Order: sequence, then C-alpha cells, then structure tokens
Amino acid sequence: MHFGRHISGQFNVELESIRTHVLTMGGLVEQQLSFAMQALHRDDVELAKKVIRDDHKVNAMEVSIDEACTRIIAKRQPTAKDLRLIMAIIKTITDLERIGDVASKIAQGAIEAPSAKDQKFHVSLEPLCRQAITMLHQVLDAFARMDVDAAAEVHKLDDKLDAEYEAVIRQLMTYMMEEPKNIPIILQVMWSARAIERVGDRCQNICEYIIYFVKGKDVRHLGEQSLDDALK
Amino acid sequence: MHFGRHISGQFNVELESIRTHVLTMGGLVEQQLSFAMQALHRDDVELAKKVIRDDHKVNAMEVSIDEACTRIIAKRQPTAKDLRLIMAIIKTITDLERIGDVASKIAQGAIEAPSAKDQKFHVSLEPLCRQAITMLHQVLDAFARMDVDAAAEVHKLDDKLDAEYEAVIRQLMTYMMEEPKNIPIILQVMWSARAIERVGDRCQNICEYIIYFVKGKDVRHLGEQSLDDALK
Repeated sequence: MHFGRHISGQFNVELESIRTHVLTMGGLVEQQLSFAMQALHRDDVELAKKVIRDDHKVNAMEVSIDEACTRIIAKRQPTAKDLRLIMAIIKTITDLERIGDVASKIAQGAIEAPSAKDQKFHVSLEPLCRQAITMLHQVLDAFARMDVDAAAEVHKLDDKLDAEYEAVIRQLMTYMMEEPKNIPIILQVMWSARAIERVGDRCQNICEYIIYFVKGKDVRHLGEQSLDDALK
Repeated sequence: MHFGRHISGQFNVELESIRTHVLTMGGLVEQQLSFAMQALHRDDVELAKKVIRDDHKVNAMEVSIDEACTRIIAKRQPTAKDLRLIMAIIKTITDLERIGDVASKIAQGAIEAPSAKDQKFHVSLEPLCRQAITMLHQVLDAFARMDVDAAAEVHKLDDKLDAEYEAVIRQLMTYMMEEPKNIPIILQVMWSARAIERVGDRCQNICEYIIYFVKGKDVRHLGEQSLDDALK
C-alpha cells in the first residue's frame, strides 16, 4: 500500500512498519477483550488473571509506537497525507490502549465476583461485549485498508451498542430492586457494562481518525448527518 | 518563556500562541466544570443548559489547536524539545476535551433530576467535584509554568480523589438499599460521580505529558514510585 508517491523508499518502509505495529496492537487489544469476556462467562479466574497480567504489553506497544511516530516526524519531516497518517496513528493508539484498560476492568470483575449466583448478572453482558468486539474488529479492518466507507459503517454501529447498553442497565436495575442486598455485586456488573459501552465510543473515535487521514477533514464532534455529508 | 534557543523568532511566536490557546481552553473547561457543579447544587437548570450549550466551544478549541499543531509540524519541522511540546499539547487537549464532556454530563444530571429530593443525593458530589476542580486548576498551573515538581504533586492528589469517590459510592449505595425505588435517580448521581473521578485520571495524564515534555521521559503506565524515580 502506498501513501503518497513522493516519499522515499526508506520512509515508506518506516511508515509501513508503524502501521503494522498498530494493527498488531489492535489485534492484541481485541484478544484481550475477547479473553476478558470468556473469563467472565466461563467463570475462569486464571484467564482473567492472564488478561490483567498482559495489559502491560498493550501499554508498552502504545509507548513504543508513540516513540516511533515522534522519531519519524523528527527525522523525515513528513507533510500532508504522511503527517496526517502519523497524527491519526498517535490518536488511534491512545484509544486502543484505553480499550485494553476496559478488558482489564472486565477481567477484574470476573475475579471479584466469580460465584455461580453472580453468573446470572454477568450473562447480561455477553451480547453487549460481543457487539463491542465486533465493532473493534471491524474498525481495525477499516484501519488496515484505510477504508472510509467501512469506517462510516462502523461509526453507525454505536447506536446499536448504546441501545443494548440501555437494555442491560434496565435489566440490572430490576435485579437491584428485587433484591437490594445484591446491589454491590450488580453495581460492579454495571460498571463493566458502562466500560464496554465506552469501547463503542472509542471505536467511533478511530473511525473519525481514518476519515481524517483519507479525506483530510476533521469530523469529530459532528452529528451522523454532517459526517455523512463530509464523506460525499 | 523560551523553549529551545535555536528556534526562529517567528516559530517561537507560533509555539507561544498555541500554548496560550491551550491555557485558554483549560480555563474554559475549568469554568464549565465549576458551572456544572453550581448548577447541580443550586438546582439551576438554566446554568446547566448553558454548560451543555457551551460544550461546542471546548470541542472547537480542540479541533483548532490540533490543526495549529499539525500546521506547525509541517511548516517548521520541529525536533527535540519543540516537537515534544507539540506532542504534549496534542495529547493534553484530548484530555481537556473529555473533561469538558464530563461537565456536560454533570449538567445533564442537574437537568434530569432537579427536584428537592434529589438534592440530597447531589450533595454528596460536592466535595468530590471541588477536589476535581482543584486538581484541574493545579495541573493547568503546572502546565503554564511547565513545572515538573508541581505536576508530580498533582499526580499524587488522585489517590485522595479516588478515596473520596469510594466514600461517595458507598454512601449512595446505602441510600439505594434503604429505598430501592430511588435506585434509578441514585444511579444517575453515581454515573456523575464516576465521571468526576475520571477527571482525576485525565489530570494525571496531563501531568505525565508535562513530565514527558520537560524530562523527555515517557512516564505513562508507571507506578508512583517509578514516577518519583524518573524525576530524580
């Protein structure tokens, strides 16, 4: 894939290498989220611990990609589209790192509330978490191909995730009212639900960086309609 | 204030202008947070609406500072400390924008639950919110002077905010158990508490960017001890 034909071969190799690292980081984050969900639903404390243990790998990738971006700016003095790619990457990895934190948070929930009774509450998170993982998978795919249309599609998926989140919270709230003694446990599950819902927002951010890179337009803070207009 | 003496006068003027904009943005965000808290405690729906209305100003500043940073990189090709300043600014404004979102969220809570009864629950947020505003104020001050020691001090304040947050959640949980019919309203207050607690994390991020700029060390994801060591 060539981003701008004017750039030198070596520069191109370096940019490609950074892009590959971002995709590797994204794959790791997706795996972390997927393992965290499995840990929650299979009551697997060992897997949950592994997720928490591996979070430092995600963090380390963020720091090293950030360094590589700063280095390439200083050394190669990129402009125009090359610079936009680097800016998009710097922002993308921040969101990926935070999604990694969400995985740890879910895993922590699996460790703190591993009893069979709690499973009933955890079950409600499954479709939500699955949707978030799908959204992340698709946005990484859009990033790999720098596909604006795919990014715009993923952006729209967040409404579905929000609706699912609202349903989960309402369901958990009825559990709370039925048995107030379960409130502390259910609150933990609600925090996890909230964190998963935020994954959707972070995926939307990444969609916006993809659009920024390809179209050169900053579409943050616009509504869906204005976003569609910007892509025409 | 001079950041690197080798840079041209015009470049220096441009960098200073961006720095000033960041401080203006920080001031606006601090005001938004402060107004949101006032709206919540004085039951002032008009003020709450103003906070929500003004959020777009914060967003617009983020976009325009980001643009200025990209422009200066393309035009001036900064390296070393100048480049680190720009990187620190790009990351700082992301966190400031999210703190602005928190202000809107709190204001939304003030609009949705403005009755006298709800005030009882809102009261518990006051010390938490006040601490968050103090932390934000201090980190902006550290940013203005690029003062590493001040940044390290602010970084430590987050533990206090977390402790206060835990106390608020525990208190609200007892209200929930006493009167389960209040659960939906109290949950709203809890979401606000959670959002305020996250302000502390965002202030910590900004502290880390200040340290990165001044010391050239990326201290993210380190514990407090390692952070102290990095500053020696």
